[in-house]
Amino acid sequence: MQPPLAWPPTLCERCMSELTGILLDLFIIYLAAKLAAEVFERIRQPAVIGELLAGLAIGPHALGLIGTPDAALVAAFHGDAAAAAEGMRLVYHVLAELGVVVLLFFVGLETRVADILRVGRRAALVAVLGVVVPFALGYALFGTVLGHPATEASFVAAAMVATSVGITARVLRDLGVIRSSESRIILGAAVIDDILAMIILAVVVGMASTGGVSAAGIALIAGQALGFTLFVVLVGTGLARRYALRLDRLRMDGAPLAVSLLAMLGLATLSASVGLAAIIGAFLAGMVFAEAREHFLLERQALPIYQFLVPFFFVLTGSNVDWRLFTDPGTLGIALTVTALALAGKLVGGGAGMLGTGRRSMAIVGVGMAPRGEVGLIVAGIGFSLGAIPSEVFGVVVMMSVLTTVVVPPVLKILYRGQPADLARAGGQAGQAGRLPEL
Amino acid sequence: MQPPLAWPPTLCERCMSELTGILLDLFIIYLAAKLAAEVFERIRQPAVIGELLAGLAIGPHALGLIGTPDAALVAAFHGDAAAAAEGMRLVYHVLAELGVVVLLFFVGLETRVADILRVGRRAALVAVLGVVVPFALGYALFGTVLGHPATEASFVAAAMVATSVGITARVLRDLGVIRSSESRIILGAAVIDDILAMIILAVVVGMASTGGVSAAGIALIAGQALGFTLFVVLVGTGLARRYALRLDRLRMDGAPLAVSLLAMLGLATLSASVGLAAIIGAFLAGMVFAEAREHFLLERQALPIYQFLVPFFFVLTGSNVDWRLFTDPGTLGIALTVTALALAGKLVGGGAGMLGTGRRSMAIVGVGMAPRGEVGLIVAGIGFSLGAIPSEVFGVVVMMSVLTTVVVPPVLKILYRGQPADLARAGGQAGQAGRLPEL
Repeated sequence: MQPPLAWPPTLCERCMSELTGILLDLFIIYLAAKLAAEVFERIRQPAVIGELLAGLAIGPHALGLIGTPDAALVAAFHGDAAAAAEGMRLVYHVLAELGVVVLLFFVGLETRVADILRVGRRAALVAVLGVVVPFALGYALFGTVLGHPATEASFVAAAMVATSVGITARVLRDLGVIRSSESRIILGAAVIDDILAMIILAVVVGMASTGGVSAAGIALIAGQALGFTLFVVLVGTGLARRYALRLDRLRMDGAPLAVSLLAMLGLATLSASVGLAAIIGAFLAGMVFAEAREHFLLERQALPIYQFLVPFFFVLTGSNVDWRLFTDPGTLGIALTVTALALAGKLVGGGAGMLGTGRRSMAIVGVGMAPRGEVGLIVAGIGFSLGAIPSEVFGVVVMMSVLTTVVVPPVLKILYRGQPADLARAGGQAGQAGRLPEL
Repeated sequence: MQPPLAWPPTLCERCMSELTGILLDLFIIYLAAKLAAEVFERIRQPAVIGELLAGLAIGPHALGLIGTPDAALVAAFHGDAAAAAEGMRLVYHVLAELGVVVLLFFVGLETRVADILRVGRRAALVAVLGVVVPFALGYALFGTVLGHPATEASFVAAAMVATSVGITARVLRDLGVIRSSESRIILGAAVIDDILAMIILAVVVGMASTGGVSAAGIALIAGQALGFTLFVVLVGTGLARRYALRLDRLRMDGAPLAVSLLAMLGLATLSASVGLAAIIGAFLAGMVFAEAREHFLLERQALPIYQFLVPFFFVLTGSNVDWRLFTDPGTLGIALTVTALALAGKLVGGGAGMLGTGRRSMAIVGVGMAPRGEVGLIVAGIGFSLGAIPSEVFGVVVMMSVLTTVVVPPVLKILYRGQPADLARAGGQAGQAGRLPEL
C-alpha cells in the first residue's frame, strides 16, 4: 500500500517555514556558547573567551555551521539567495545588538553615581592614567608607526582602553582578596574606566561617521557625548530617586522591570540617533535605574534576560573573526605587539596612578586593570560593523582582547601568593562591581 | 566662525547604523505594549488585548509608526528598498517567533504530566468536548457553509479550539473562587485543552505544508504529532526526573535556566524540522522542565525573559490586522458569527462535559473555557505566515480571539454573584494554571 503523501522528504522540504533554519542556527549558537562556557569554567578560564572561540569555530570562516540561508528562507526572498543571506545577517546583527545592549544595561545597573563619587581620588587617578597611556600607545603604533588612517587607529586605541572588570572581580573573589585596598581601587577605577571608555567610543564612532578628525570636530563630539552623559545621569538619576520607588503603583505586571527595559531601549535608540553608540544609552539607562535596583531586585530580574541574549553577542562576534589571518606572520606580529602594548599601557598607567603604595600594589592594580574582555570586543565590533576597521584589524583587536584576558588570572594569583585572604568574600564592597555574571 | 563639520543633519544622516531604525521600532513596540497593558489593567480588561490593539494602532494599516526601513537600512541593502523592507520583516518575524516560543515554554513550565493525570475524568471530558464541538462548528461554517478550502477552514476551526486559561484564571482569582470545584475543573481541562490544541495545530500545519487533506494523510500527521508529543514527554520527563536536579553540578553560570532554554530552542527547532509548529516543541520543553521548576525557580527566572520578549509577539501580531476589513459588513458579519459559534461551542461542549452538576456549574465551566486569547492568535498567526489563511480570515480570527476574551470576565462575575468567595486565594490548586502573567 502506498502512502497518499510522499512522506518525510517532501514534507520536510515543503513544510519548513522561513524561520526553521534561523531557529536551528540560534540553537547551535546557544549550544556552542553553553558547551564552551562549561569547558572554560572547568579549565578556570573566563567563559566569555570560550563563547568567543565557539563563535569562531562554528562561524563561516571555520566549520560554517551557521549563517547559510536554507531553501525555505531563500524562497521567502523570492529565490534571491543573496538577499536572503543579507536578511539573515540583519537578523543576527539585531540579536547581537540586543545582547550587547542588555549587557551594557546590566553593567550600568551595577554602577551607581554615588558609588563613583565615593571611590576617591586614587581610583580616579588609576582610571584616567590607565586610559590615557594605552590609548596613546595604541594610537602611536597604528597611526604613527604603521601609518593606518586616523579613524582606524582611534578605534584600535579605544579598544585598548577599557577594563573588563567582571573577569578581574571574579579572580579577586576566588582568591578571597576582594576586600583588599587594591581590589577596591581596581573595582572603583573600572567603573570610571567604563564611563571614560563610553565617551571615547562616542568620539571614535562620531569620527567614523563623519570622517572628521579635526581637533574642533573631536572636541564637538566629545562635548556632545559628555553633555548627553551628564544630562541623562543628572536628570535621570534625579527622576529615578524621586519616582522610581513608586513604579509598583502601576497596574501592569512587572512594572519596574518593564519601565527600566523601556528606558534601556529608549536611551539606546536616542544615543544611536544622535550619533553615539546605542550601548552608551543602554549603559546610562542602567546607571539611572541603579538607584532603584535593590528595591525592585532589578539585577536579579535582568539576569535571565542577560543569560538568554548576551551569548548571542559573543558567539556572533567570534563568528566574524577569520582565524586564517593569524597564519600570516605580519598580522600575528601586529596582534602580539598590540597585546603587549595593551598590557604595558595598563601596567604603566595603572601603576603610575598607584605611585607611593609600593611595588606589589602597583603591579596588582596594573595587572588587575589589564583584561579587555568584552569591552574590547564591543568596540572592535562597532568599528567593524561601521566599516571603520578592516577585517584583519578586527581580528587583531579580538586577539588582544582574548590574550589580555587570559593572562591576567594566573599573574594575579602569583602576585597575591602568600597574602592572607580575607574571609568575608561576599562583603558589601565586593558586590559593587563583582556581580557581572560569567557568561 | 563656521563649524568644521556640517553638524547635526550630516552627522545624523551618516552616523546612523543600519540598526537605529529597528531599535526605534522596538522601542515604539515595547512602549505601546506597556502603555496599553497599563490602560487595560486599569479598565479591568486583559492586558494582552491591549497589546494586540496597540499593535493594530501602530502597525502599517493604521498609524504606520513601525515597519518602514530608514535610509541607513536601505543603504545597507545596497539601496534596494524592497529587500530592506523584506529584511526588516524577517527580523520582526524572528522576534515575534522568539516571543511566542518563550510564551509556550512558560505555559509548558506550568504543565506537569503528573498534574494532568490527577485532574480526573471530568476535566478530560470537558476538555475533549470543549475541543470537538467548537472545531466542528468552525469547520462547518467555513468549510461547508462558506465553502472555503479545507486547509483554511481547518485553521479557523483550530483557532476556535484552545482555551486561553490565563485570563480565566486571573478572573477566578480576582473573584476569590479559584478553589471552587468548577475552577479546578476549568484549570485542569485547560491544560488538556492546550495539549489537544497543539496536536490539532500540528495536523493543520501539516495539511497546509503538504496540501494534503486525505484522511490517511491527516491520520499520518496526527500520529506523528502524537508520537512526537508522547516521545518527548515520556523520555524527556524521565530524563528530567533523573538528571535535572543535578544540573547545578555544572560549572557554568545559571546552568538550570541555560539548559532549559537550550531544550526550548532545540525542541522548537526539532518540531519545526519534522513539520510541526516550533511552539509545540517549546511547550513540550517547558513540560519536561516542569519536573524541576520548583527546585531551580525556573518560572521565576523565565518570567523576565517572558516580560521582555512576549509583548513583541502580540504587538506584531496586532500590527498585521487590517482594521478596515471590518468596515466591510460581510467580513464583520462573518467575524461576529465565528465569535458566536466559538462561544456557543465552548458553552455546549464544556457544559455537556459537566452534565449532572447543575446548570450553574455547567454555565460557569462553559463560559470559563471560552476565552481564546493568545492561543487563537498564535494559531491564526501561524496560518497567516504560512499563507494558509488570507488577510481577511486572519482578521476574523483575531476579532474572535479578542471578543471571546473580553466578554468572559463580566459574565463570569455575574455567574458567581452571590456565591461565597473562598478566602485562600493563593492555594495550592490555584497556582497550577494561574501563574501565567498578564501581559
